[in-house]
Amino acid sequence: MLTLNGDVGESFGHWNMGSDATLIPLLDMANIACGFHASDPEHMSKTVALCLKHNVSIGAHPGYPDLQGFGRRSMTMESNTLTQSVLYQVGALKAIAEYQEGKVSYIKPHGALYNDMMSSPEVFKAILSAAQSLNLPLMVLATREHQLYQTLAAGYGVPLIFEGFADRSYLDSGLLAPRSLENAVLHQQNQILTQADAFITGTPIKTLDGNSLTLTIDTLCVHGDNQASIDVAKALRSRLDNAIKLSGDKP
Amino acid sequence: MLTLNGDVGESFGHWNMGSDATLIPLLDMANIACGFHASDPEHMSKTVALCLKHNVSIGAHPGYPDLQGFGRRSMTMESNTLTQSVLYQVGALKAIAEYQEGKVSYIKPHGALYNDMMSSPEVFKAILSAAQSLNLPLMVLATREHQLYQTLAAGYGVPLIFEGFADRSYLDSGLLAPRSLENAVLHQQNQILTQADAFITGTPIKTLDGNSLTLTIDTLCVHGDNQASIDVAKALRSRLDNAIKLSGDKP
Amino acid sequence: MLTLNGDVGESFGHWNMGSDATLIPLLDMANIACGFHASDPEHMSKTVALCLKHNVSIGAHPGYPDLQGFGRRSMTMESNTLTQSVLYQVGALKAIAEYQEGKVSYIKPHGALYNDMMSSPEVFKAILSAAQSLNLPLMVLATREHQLYQTLAAGYGVPLIFEGFADRSYLDSGLLAPRSLENAVLHQQNQILTQADAFITGTPIKTLDGNSLTLTIDTLCVHGDNQASIDVAKALRSRLDNAIKLSGDKP
Amino acid sequence: MLTLNGDVGESFGHWNMGSDATLIPLLDMANIACGFHASDPEHMSKTVALCLKHNVSIGAHPGYPDLQGFGRRSMTMESNTLTQSVLYQVGALKAIAEYQEGKVSYIKPHGALYNDMMSSPEVFKAILSAAQSLNLPLMVLATREHQLYQTLAAGYGVPLIFEGFADRSYLDSGLLAPRSLENAVLHQQNQILTQADAFITGTPIKTLDGNSLTLTIDTLCVHGDNQASIDVAKALRSRLDNAIKLSGDKP
Repeated sequence: MLTLNGDVGESFGHWNMGSDATLIPLLDMANIACGFHASDPEHMSKTVALCLKHNVSIGAHPGYPDLQGFGRRSMTMESNTLTQSVLYQVGALKAIAEYQEGKVSYIKPHGALYNDMMSSPEVFKAILSAAQSLNLPLMVLATREHQLYQTLAAGYGVPLIFEGFADRSYLDSGLLAPRSLENAVLHQQNQILTQADAFITGTPIKTLDGNSLTLTIDTLCVHGDNQASIDVAKALRSRLDNAIKLSGDKP
Repeated sequence: MLTLNGDVGESFGHWNMGSDATLIPLLDMANIACGFHASDPEHMSKTVALCLKHNVSIGAHPGYPDLQGFGRRSMTMESNTLTQSVLYQVGALKAIAEYQEGKVSYIKPHGALYNDMMSSPEVFKAILSAAQSLNLPLMVLATREHQLYQTLAAGYGVPLIFEGFADRSYLDSGLLAPRSLENAVLHQQNQILTQADAFITGTPIKTLDGNSLTLTIDTLCVHGDNQASIDVAKALRSRLDNAIKLSGDKP
Repeated sequence: MLTLNGDVGESFGHWNMGSDATLIPLLDMANIACGFHASDPEHMSKTVALCLKHNVSIGAHPGYPDLQGFGRRSMTMESNTLTQSVLYQVGALKAIAEYQEGKVSYIKPHGALYNDMMSSPEVFKAILSAAQSLNLPLMVLATREHQLYQTLAAGYGVPLIFEGFADRSYLDSGLLAPRSLENAVLHQQNQILTQADAFITGTPIKTLDGNSLTLTIDTLCVHGDNQASIDVAKALRSRLDNAIKLSGDKP
Repeated sequence: MLTLNGDVGESFGHWNMGSDATLIPLLDMANIACGFHASDPEHMSKTVALCLKHNVSIGAHPGYPDLQGFGRRSMTMESNTLTQSVLYQVGALKAIAEYQEGKVSYIKPHGALYNDMMSSPEVFKAILSAAQSLNLPLMVLATREHQLYQTLAAGYGVPLIFEGFADRSYLDSGLLAPRSLENAVLHQQNQILTQADAFITGTPIKTLDGNSLTLTIDTLCVHGDNQASIDVAKALRSRLDNAIKLSGDKP
């Protein structure tokens, strides 16, 4: 059964971002920012508390050390620097979660680090090395090349969690359509739910070019930036809950 | 038997500080900066490696979030913010140490945070709360008021490690003489070793006013900023090693 | 004639704060954050553009170097460090303003730096020294001790601009009631406008203890954090515009 | 007549870097870090003071906002963000210099920003736009393509200052040999001085492949990281002083 994951805990100091109190109860897995691209010890603690209250899995969401750029600017970092930076951020969240008797269950890199992980085997391996030591699974983008990523991950003994996007268009190659392309982001709720339904039922989605693409995923990423995205998350939550009821399965 | 502890891992990015490669082999306990007042994931990793190579205990040395001020500027922080900030830093170091199969053995706050801990019960309790959750002992300044600190720490189940300074003058009150006073810092090696010997043998030291003061300590803090301080550390190391040989004891 | 001033440009990176597009057109003087407690070069540039578009005076709003604490945590800084920090921030804003053919017209310190300036002559003098070199007036809190501040400022040749708060209660001493006291902050629009009217007409305001207090001010500080504060700002703007029309005066 | 320029003021907080007190008196032009990749308001102020004392031109040395990476990691930044970031840093240094009655005379970007400026016309134009507004010349790397850079710079009315390196090998293309190549950096003083002499006399230098290359430069970049580099700087200083005496010229 698919799960819903979302990026949360992205406030920083006196600046708020997102609607965590609304979004988190809709999620199965919450990707919590760890202080490098967003958040700080106090916000991490508050976000952990919300996850524990709503019984949502806590994931570490490490990023590049760039608050000003929100971790969306790619930075050239050496492999070991990256590994240690991921250890640092996930370790910090672990201690904050354990203070509340919670635990970190997985890692999902953020922003430019996520993109770089998908495109650079060296970055991917640097992150796998951290995940191995932390004994945590790693969430990556579902593509048509699962085997490639799984082979590398297996070398580190790290399980992968594949995620898909209901609100993003895909290319025939199985990669996300770059945001620079028209219709790269789906805005209509019915379009998004149609794509989500395809993921949920394991049937092909339509690519930007109108072809069929089948991607096997474990989890759907949802957003909570605005009311429309929250509405989509609610609709997906109830779809998944119904699917669970029908199948007698549990996420 | 007394141990020697020292602040290490205080480099940051491309800036070096201290002589860790020389100082660490002389120590029993190494207080490693955690990225808020100094260091970064890569330097933390290198410092952990040095400690493991020389079989030196790894301590977390958390500070205020102030690289520019090196954690020496007091900052007004709420109690829970402080607790979470300590958890964050120690958790980060734990993950980095565990990557190398090392472990963090204790916490010693840095700079203004250390001073504020000694003078403010609220700050002390905020740190104790983190230490309790991390299940780690806390290093504090030896004063004439051990009972006061131990009672508070006992409420959190946190063991205390009391430290003394061989190169700092003490007031009759048992507190360190403020650096603004003349002769607050001892510079002559023979003066420093005389004070160290008093700590080692449990006999009284001379205060700045010429009176006798007996402080019970577990560990002596040494420095590695310059050749003179390294020489003192070497002399103390061999004194302690000899004392261990004489007593058949082990630190 | 009184002017209205407000703190603006407090967004940072991907985090938004305030309603600058709504607030700035209501102001005479805009205090623009300079990157130490909030903002960054890009947001400073956007805020300058809004001020120029609406013909609002640009003020530099320097703070302590503490993004996480939004400059609201007092930091112990040496006098010259403070002077250079103010020069740095104001100089940065000047260059950004001049790129758009605007100019910085005054300085108003932010948050804990503002409070420390009012309570510590050393901090006040450190800021005056920067203001003197920049040849800019300095905005300070109106108290019953104008003479005290003016004498110090005169020593640096720095004109002072005295500001009052329509939405804060005052003590009999002429100081703002600490936020910890009940009713320290006025929330009812009619209360706020009554106090503003007293400032505008130069008649006494009522202190928290019910006594009369006359403060001479040059400018009223307004806020734009929420709809209620924007409504107050609009009401004050139209009161001041009417007063100007009646008097034939210009701010 | 050639000048000597060097990167200075690269200390940060409690961390020292370089030997400014020794290097600055040997220079004609000092490139002062502006707080994004190194330095802080206080160190900027101290470095300005040294320059004024030794009558050395003050240049702004802006970089990417990345203290941890010392501005040596390339960051993807939008064009206007870059322009505003350069304005911010140079404006900050200007105010600090003017406090001491000094002035900023030119801009030389640092590290990855310098490299990106040379390889990306978009980055170059973003920096030119800031230099134009600040009315300051810009120092760039001398290559065989002066015309290309000068045409772009002329569009902004910005004079260029071309610099060469006596201690770096060049490729036949006129570009610096990447540090990854063997012999990319010259370490022997006699080799460095031979290359410097060629620059000074306007005769060809030998490229890494043994061919002749003539580059027209205005200034030579020297370093002060270690005793050997200081010795080279001293030798170059006296060569240039002698050349000046012979020619009756002044730098």
